Amino acid sequence: MWTETRVTGLLGIRCPILQAPMAGGATTPELVAAVSNAGGLGALGAGYMSAAAMRGAIRRIRELTDRPFAVNLFVPETPQEDEERMAAAHRLLRPYRQELGLSGEPQLSAYAEPFAEQIAVVLAERVTVFSFTFGIPSEEILQQLREQGIKTIGTATTVREAVLLEQSGIDLIHAQGGEAGGHRGTFLGRHGDALVGTMALVPQIVDHVTLPVIAAGGIMDGRGIAASLMLGAEAVQLGTAFLTTAESGIHPDYQAALLSSTEESTALTSAFSGKPARGLQNRFLREMEPHQQELPDYPIQNALTRDIRQAAAGQNNTDFMSLWAGQGTRLTRRQTAAELMANLIEETHNALHKVKRIP
Amino acid sequence: MWTETRVTGLLGIRCPILQAPMAGGATTPELVAAVSNAGGLGALGAGYMSAAAMRGAIRRIRELTDRPFAVNLFVPETPQEDEERMAAAHRLLRPYRQELGLSGEPQLSAYAEPFAEQIAVVLAERVTVFSFTFGIPSEEILQQLREQGIKTIGTATTVREAVLLEQSGIDLIHAQGGEAGGHRGTFLGRHGDALVGTMALVPQIVDHVTLPVIAAGGIMDGRGIAASLMLGAEAVQLGTAFLTTAESGIHPDYQAALLSSTEESTALTSAFSGKPARGLQNRFLREMEPHQQELPDYPIQNALTRDIRQAAAGQNNTDFMSLWAGQGTRLTRRQTAAELMANLIEETHNALHKVKRIP
Repeated sequence: MWTETRVTGLLGIRCPILQAPMAGGATTPELVAAVSNAGGLGALGAGYMSAAAMRGAIRRIRELTDRPFAVNLFVPETPQEDEERMAAAHRLLRPYRQELGLSGEPQLSAYAEPFAEQIAVVLAERVTVFSFTFGIPSEEILQQLREQGIKTIGTATTVREAVLLEQSGIDLIHAQGGEAGGHRGTFLGRHGDALVGTMALVPQIVDHVTLPVIAAGGIMDGRGIAASLMLGAEAVQLGTAFLTTAESGIHPDYQAALLSSTEESTALTSAFSGKPARGLQNRFLREMEPHQQELPDYPIQNALTRDIRQAAAGQNNTDFMSLWAGQGTRLTRRQTAAELMANLIEETHNALHKVKRIP
Repeated sequence: MWTETRVTGLLGIRCPILQAPMAGGATTPELVAAVSNAGGLGALGAGYMSAAAMRGAIRRIRELTDRPFAVNLFVPETPQEDEERMAAAHRLLRPYRQELGLSGEPQLSAYAEPFAEQIAVVLAERVTVFSFTFGIPSEEILQQLREQGIKTIGTATTVREAVLLEQSGIDLIHAQGGEAGGHRGTFLGRHGDALVGTMALVPQIVDHVTLPVIAAGGIMDGRGIAASLMLGAEAVQLGTAFLTTAESGIHPDYQAALLSSTEESTALTSAFSGKPARGLQNRFLREMEPHQQELPDYPIQNALTRDIRQAAAGQNNTDFMSLWAGQGTRLTRRQTAAELMANLIEETHNALHKVKRIP
């Protein structure tokens, strides 16, 4: 169906379609395995998972597929523990906590899962592909990954980031356009300056690195896949498109919101986690919009809103869930991951063939 | 070279490449004619031109080409004359006026050129194509244009706008993605919600209208053109790419700034005109960023900053010019419009042929 490209060869997959490693429960072992079984690369979004949970999920995926898949982690940051911002967050979040019936302030033992423990699982389990975002792991970790034969994918939102990633010795560059849902991977410069649309970002990155580039952001169907290949990408990554599949682990009301949303529905917010991310606009996102600059850094704010998001999910209340979504939401479909993969492949060929008739 | 598509047929052009109608002097008769002579559609950005200046430019273009070209106007808006905002603008602009040696406050007879006079020139001159942005002209004007056999192109930044444009009876839809330089064409809803990347916007609009769609935003070379065709667009519009051609009418220092800028260089600002537009970040854009909400609406703010921009140009001072640019600025090239057109056509074919080898 697809001749071998650098990406399919490197990753051992049949078609250059990657499922985005969405953290927060979307990437069930069933979803990851279904994508890999269909010839793409499934990915476990493990950023928020404990080492034990990661190990369990990886082993479950291996029961469901013998194909390659990826595990994704967040490169840790050392946030500023600013007392004023902590106080602001507590003050701003308190009414929502009360509304959801949560008592007292959140009790935090740590802001995030220990990265060293997470990466140890990746190494011990020898996953085929390790992808990461929010920065670049240490040279020591990258060396350990190489020694295990694990392929590495880093996330860039600008040419500068892509060049730095290439210099670090990783294997593939994921170019995240401004349309993409979820967290921005930006780790150099200002988030606003690094919000570059996929159409503009991909060719500029392709021109400045020699590694294969994986395009992401606003790609929802075969038209977007074919377009990305034209821009010089050698593979694509789709996130939002997989959120409404049967295997997706997100809340049914979140799925329903996606299926009824439009390209005008999303906005960037740092109110949920302290780091800008694109999601469907809901009450929490709108009401917190004027206060985003007052809040603590990621991952502190993420830890502070965790029980709010969990309580909202338990109460089927989308007002306070983080409804991450890209800008292509009118193109979401309710089907199985295998059906989506089959459609993506067929549509890509249709798009390529349709355009062949033009010149 | 290109088989006839709906767009080439409708507009009487050979290849589906449109030069964006950039107002403010960029679109000299020489640029417009060069693009049309090369088989694309040149366009005069006449939004800020008097009727007499328009007539002169149209006649000059006709001396240089017998091919079709477009004239573009801004659909007028009735701004709120808010005294507080006017006072804020005067207060905020005064230091810049002093720095540039401008004395007193700007003397304004009108905020914008009279649309009725401008449209009368379009009708009287029977230009082949009339394109517009910032809204939809009245049914009466659209009827007059139809009666003259003038083809019409309206600008949409969302599906809702595209559907409304189609209902108005125009001929083509220009889909303006968030990467695009210059003014946002948004006329429904909130500007922030309508900032949708080209990769996500084009297929969603294509799915909801039957008119041919022209993609714009971040398209700088044949890769972007081929990608847009894959997304379902039947033509493309490039603006920034033409700003650095030899025929472009922009200030040489503005051209130099474009040629040395990156994908991180642009930002949206409403400080120059009262309406959000994407341009290279400079001192005026950065310093006015916190004050954007305090300023008068378009076109009042545009009129208030006019002599600042003119004085800055006269003094070769890019700190105070409006340096409109899209997000693909690393792909700008210094060449003639004819060379650029030839390259675009060749690159499009290269992109299409490269991808043909993939599946």
